[in-house]
Amino acid sequence: MERGKLNMLTDVPGVKVGHVTLQEETAVDSACTGVTAILPHAGNLFEQKVPAASFVLNGFGKTAGLIQVEELGLIESPIMLTNTFSVGAVLEGTLHYMLDENPTIGDSTSSLNIVVGECNDSYLNAMREMKVRPTHAIEAIRKAESGKFEQGAVGAGKGMICFGHKGGIGSSSRVASEGDLTFTVGVLTLTNFGNQEECLLDEWLVRNGYEGSITDLTSENELQEKPDGSVIIVVATDAPVNERQLKRLAKRASIGLGRTGTYIHNGSGDIIIAFSTAYTIPHTSEQLTVTHTMLRDDIPLMNKLFQATIEATEEAVFQSLLHAETTIGRNNRTVKRWLIKSDNAR
Amino acid sequence: MERGKLNMLTDVPGVKVGHVTLQEETAVDSACTGVTAILPHAGNLFEQKVPAASFVLNGFGKTAGLIQVEELGLIESPIMLTNTFSVGAVLEGTLHYMLDENPTIGDSTSSLNIVVGECNDSYLNAMREMKVRPTHAIEAIRKAESGKFEQGAVGAGKGMICFGHKGGIGSSSRVASEGDLTFTVGVLTLTNFGNQEECLLDEWLVRNGYEGSITDLTSENELQEKPDGSVIIVVATDAPVNERQLKRLAKRASIGLGRTGTYIHNGSGDIIIAFSTAYTIPHTSEQLTVTHTMLRDDIPLMNKLFQATIEATEEAVFQSLLHAETTIGRNNRTVKRWLIKSDNAR
Amino acid sequence: MERGKLNMLTDVPGVKVGHVTLQEETAVDSACTGVTAILPHAGNLFEQKVPAASFVLNGFGKTAGLIQVEELGLIESPIMLTNTFSVGAVLEGTLHYMLDENPTIGDSTSSLNIVVGECNDSYLNAMREMKVRPTHAIEAIRKAESGKFEQGAVGAGKGMICFGHKGGIGSSSRVASEGDLTFTVGVLTLTNFGNQEECLLDEWLVRNGYEGSITDLTSENELQEKPDGSVIIVVATDAPVNERQLKRLAKRASIGLGRTGTYIHNGSGDIIIAFSTAYTIPHTSEQLTVTHTMLRDDIPLMNKLFQATIEATEEAVFQSLLHAETTIGRNNRTVKRWLIKSDNAR
Amino acid sequence: MERGKLNMLTDVPGVKVGHVTLQEETAVDSACTGVTAILPHAGNLFEQKVPAASFVLNGFGKTAGLIQVEELGLIESPIMLTNTFSVGAVLEGTLHYMLDENPTIGDSTSSLNIVVGECNDSYLNAMREMKVRPTHAIEAIRKAESGKFEQGAVGAGKGMICFGHKGGIGSSSRVASEGDLTFTVGVLTLTNFGNQEECLLDEWLVRNGYEGSITDLTSENELQEKPDGSVIIVVATDAPVNERQLKRLAKRASIGLGRTGTYIHNGSGDIIIAFSTAYTIPHTSEQLTVTHTMLRDDIPLMNKLFQATIEATEEAVFQSLLHAETTIGRNNRTVKRWLIKSDNAR
Repeated sequence: MERGKLNMLTDVPGVKVGHVTLQEETAVDSACTGVTAILPHAGNLFEQKVPAASFVLNGFGKTAGLIQVEELGLIESPIMLTNTFSVGAVLEGTLHYMLDENPTIGDSTSSLNIVVGECNDSYLNAMREMKVRPTHAIEAIRKAESGKFEQGAVGAGKGMICFGHKGGIGSSSRVASEGDLTFTVGVLTLTNFGNQEECLLDEWLVRNGYEGSITDLTSENELQEKPDGSVIIVVATDAPVNERQLKRLAKRASIGLGRTGTYIHNGSGDIIIAFSTAYTIPHTSEQLTVTHTMLRDDIPLMNKLFQATIEATEEAVFQSLLHAETTIGRNNRTVKRWLIKSDNAR
Repeated sequence: MERGKLNMLTDVPGVKVGHVTLQEETAVDSACTGVTAILPHAGNLFEQKVPAASFVLNGFGKTAGLIQVEELGLIESPIMLTNTFSVGAVLEGTLHYMLDENPTIGDSTSSLNIVVGECNDSYLNAMREMKVRPTHAIEAIRKAESGKFEQGAVGAGKGMICFGHKGGIGSSSRVASEGDLTFTVGVLTLTNFGNQEECLLDEWLVRNGYEGSITDLTSENELQEKPDGSVIIVVATDAPVNERQLKRLAKRASIGLGRTGTYIHNGSGDIIIAFSTAYTIPHTSEQLTVTHTMLRDDIPLMNKLFQATIEATEEAVFQSLLHAETTIGRNNRTVKRWLIKSDNAR
Repeated sequence: MERGKLNMLTDVPGVKVGHVTLQEETAVDSACTGVTAILPHAGNLFEQKVPAASFVLNGFGKTAGLIQVEELGLIESPIMLTNTFSVGAVLEGTLHYMLDENPTIGDSTSSLNIVVGECNDSYLNAMREMKVRPTHAIEAIRKAESGKFEQGAVGAGKGMICFGHKGGIGSSSRVASEGDLTFTVGVLTLTNFGNQEECLLDEWLVRNGYEGSITDLTSENELQEKPDGSVIIVVATDAPVNERQLKRLAKRASIGLGRTGTYIHNGSGDIIIAFSTAYTIPHTSEQLTVTHTMLRDDIPLMNKLFQATIEATEEAVFQSLLHAETTIGRNNRTVKRWLIKSDNAR
Repeated sequence: MERGKLNMLTDVPGVKVGHVTLQEETAVDSACTGVTAILPHAGNLFEQKVPAASFVLNGFGKTAGLIQVEELGLIESPIMLTNTFSVGAVLEGTLHYMLDENPTIGDSTSSLNIVVGECNDSYLNAMREMKVRPTHAIEAIRKAESGKFEQGAVGAGKGMICFGHKGGIGSSSRVASEGDLTFTVGVLTLTNFGNQEECLLDEWLVRNGYEGSITDLTSENELQEKPDGSVIIVVATDAPVNERQLKRLAKRASIGLGRTGTYIHNGSGDIIIAFSTAYTIPHTSEQLTVTHTMLRDDIPLMNKLFQATIEATEEAVFQSLLHAETTIGRNNRTVKRWLIKSDNAR
């Protein structure tokens, strides 16, 4: 399928991404981590919520906020990504940001649900030191922008490891059309899972016309061991779909993940969060009802959106590999980039 | 059914409860909140995990940690309760506690999953001020003890409101037997939901032989409005049941909650967490396998455990009302105790 | 809350109910069973599907068709009720009916999903004989009508036992309003669960003003044993709610069931199916999109619909007891009606 | 990973498979369909139940029996596969078989849960005619044997279409070891989904060393349209795993399915059923408890079982293509076999 203009999550109009990277590498207790903020739209997310759903492929993970997403079918905060032990700090920072923006939350109106996804970057990052503080979350939100954003060893992806090499943030997008309707599916992944031998990157490169770029692992030292891994997948679309349909997209993202070759290991928190920007649900309204237009399930376009989600997820994982630079972290540990024979695919 | 000796969660041997209460009442920005810690056993919870499950009756809530509980069927940390905006601080504090106790977590072994439940106490508590800090979580864990614990407006229950009156922490237990086997089901609830007119306390008092104690609301000023509510229900048992069976107990707790009269309002996070102390799952083992003995589903004792869970949940909610004293919180707001005609039921 | 005009499922405009009762009592292999058909509207259900959801409170049951209801959020056939061993015959009969009405199903268009709920009536009915045939399902659909329908030992309820006495079909409804909007929630239950000692009918009678009618069990011989039980609860509403919101109603029905006193025994298939008649989803359309108006989750009316569902479910169970006459089944087994002291409540 | 001896589901000791094929091809109303029975072990399945779980990847399907599998974590009947409109007949036939074998079911003991999976074979089969009768189900069970069984256009697979070519029954297996422990994962698929252009068979052939066997589609007439599709995946293992762990295997099967290239179309019922033969749960017991030994989640062997499930599922789908012969069905419709350049892969 056709990629979006940037081949990124931000091809979905209005979506913004911001990173804060903490990199005090090489010491025993040094930080090699960060925060990534995904804003479904540029407005006040609490006042104008977006339809959303999630799917847990393997639940060895500590993602916060999904219970309410499932119950109400919406997201009302930035989606935040960080390391496992910083979920608390990022929850608190994001809360501060949202409370500043919305003086009535937790006072005269209801509370607020924040979604924070995480992976364990403890091989490179002194995760026990909890170097990510609430202010870093606020900063990541403030830095979020439309358009092109950095991928690889950046933001929450700074210390992540994927298929035994340097992973982190990867993104991709696809465009699906039928009749007059054209929609984009964008995916952002935080990749921190898998072993080298299970990776199907080369098949993907060949299938996508990058034959000259297949893997060159001759000079690589493989990473031997890793306590556990995870991946967070964020799917955005401007297609008008409701919460039930977004869960269907989220399940397709798990299929795209599977195509990268991972066996979905026991110790992996493989979690997908999907939202649509096609309409918003206002926090308050004069009306007792709300009217939405959504796609019919049985139109060919729906299957194209499924395909788009699978393809963009698969590619987003590989883009995290293709963008991530060799990184040195705590204890002078090094995780090397995934070498390919040419730069056609990058 | 027969109650346990204390009629409390801690009738389940080994279970400990600790409270930290923050009470700087009456000012605009004053704290009227706290933290409650529930320890499934007295040992190292990460090293010796307990089988567990959860059930979300209504998911307008921000409870953290349930994804991994569902995937692995176990709990490996204290279960922490607090107000909605303190989930981050309590996550971080509990993490500090557990990391101190376990030097390998997040270093050479895997990460750690912490369960934090919450309700919104913003009517009485300046929740936006986030007065609960990580140290309060640690303190609540350290203070946790076996035996009798305080109920009512204490710990996480300090600022909670139930059926328009003062709620908070309530507990109850039941004993179930068949043949040689005798087990206890203990329930602790953090109650923060409902309107006065839906409350079925009087029916419960009559059904349980407290006819002289029915409600006396003549002098009460009802609370008029409340942005939203919630209830967290923790079910413990020493019956040998696995994660699937614990989910069945968790669902029965939702039935017990329903018997108190609530309509399970839209804005309520009604969440049940159930664990067994009958066996533990070691974090590391020389063995590739684990052997457990559990109850058959079809024995009469299983239905008695269901009954025990329903009865203890229903009573735990009412015990929170019966124990909670009139409380003055921020802005000089008062929430009165639920008056009954005599003290037979207390 | 206010009841609907008939206090029945059919107070929801358009909903039709039909029974076929098989009663060749007293012989060893005699039938004491039947089929009940619930039609969400009077039109072609395949061409005009209704939004729907389900909730499984306890899954010791054989209800067919719920997987697709969950995936697509809709129902496209009559909802059929029968005994456990007749699910196959009723599936086939309903399929014949629908195929006759829709010549393209299973040929040029897609297949068809049929929902069949069941309870085990083997105490009174020679269930192993499978006396219900496909034609009985067709007949029940053809007999379905708007307005008043029979309750008690009729249709699928013919052989059912509830709280140790004669159960079967019971129904009730409630009306909820806010501003200009007024909607009905109707519930039909097929009751086949519970023991006499757990039944809270008397509390309900007192709470609803029928003090003179409380239970008179002096002359009754209790049923001693029953292999297992179940209850199917069908919730209908004309409120405009989507599949996610209908699942919320379905969960509230489980609360209403719990209020009748049952401990939700191990061997019980306690299953709720909810649908709305407020709009239909056409099987085919020229349009790529569909536009629906639905209630906001946060309006008071939503909580009233929750209350309506709970109250109507609780009452529907009790109405099955109040309507069911003493029934003699196979082997001359007798299940007596639940005696009350006067007929005020009937 | 290493394949089992037969590369089939029946490499799991004790598992039996039986087919009944109905083939009156070419007339308008002719049957081109069948039934496949999978017996988890050779004994009385009701008396000795097996631990089991399911996962619904896409729920546009009519599979019966999964509610109870989820609640109790076990299967107590053969797993039956057939066409969509024959679920009722196969339920009834299987019930007759089980009742004959167990005189107390539905009389003095509880009822029985039967699992029936289905796909829509209406392109080739006059599905509306319901040619599969209860006796065919009984016959398929009786014919079930250990060891090698037919694949391709046989049994329930007779009329199925996969990736635009002839599909049906496919099977594969893998062997996983750690220390002294060696276990087999066997998979059987009933394939009826997908379009030719999404199929990744060639990648699989290359990855598995069958370079000479890649697809030769030059002479094929593609199937243009198909109303909808589905796939049923049955996973068996002799590894000692419980119902929660079996659900994890079931989820991995969905990943294996995704690797075949399908986008998991809207109209597809993609359903996985997993069981273990490592231990049985007796229907009745003198004991109140049951003791099981199961694998620890965190051992490398568990990840190997995940890998085994993914690989065997992917291959089982492709084996259905590689075995299925060109088939002529109703209205003289032809679905061609998937041509490969040599027979190395067959």
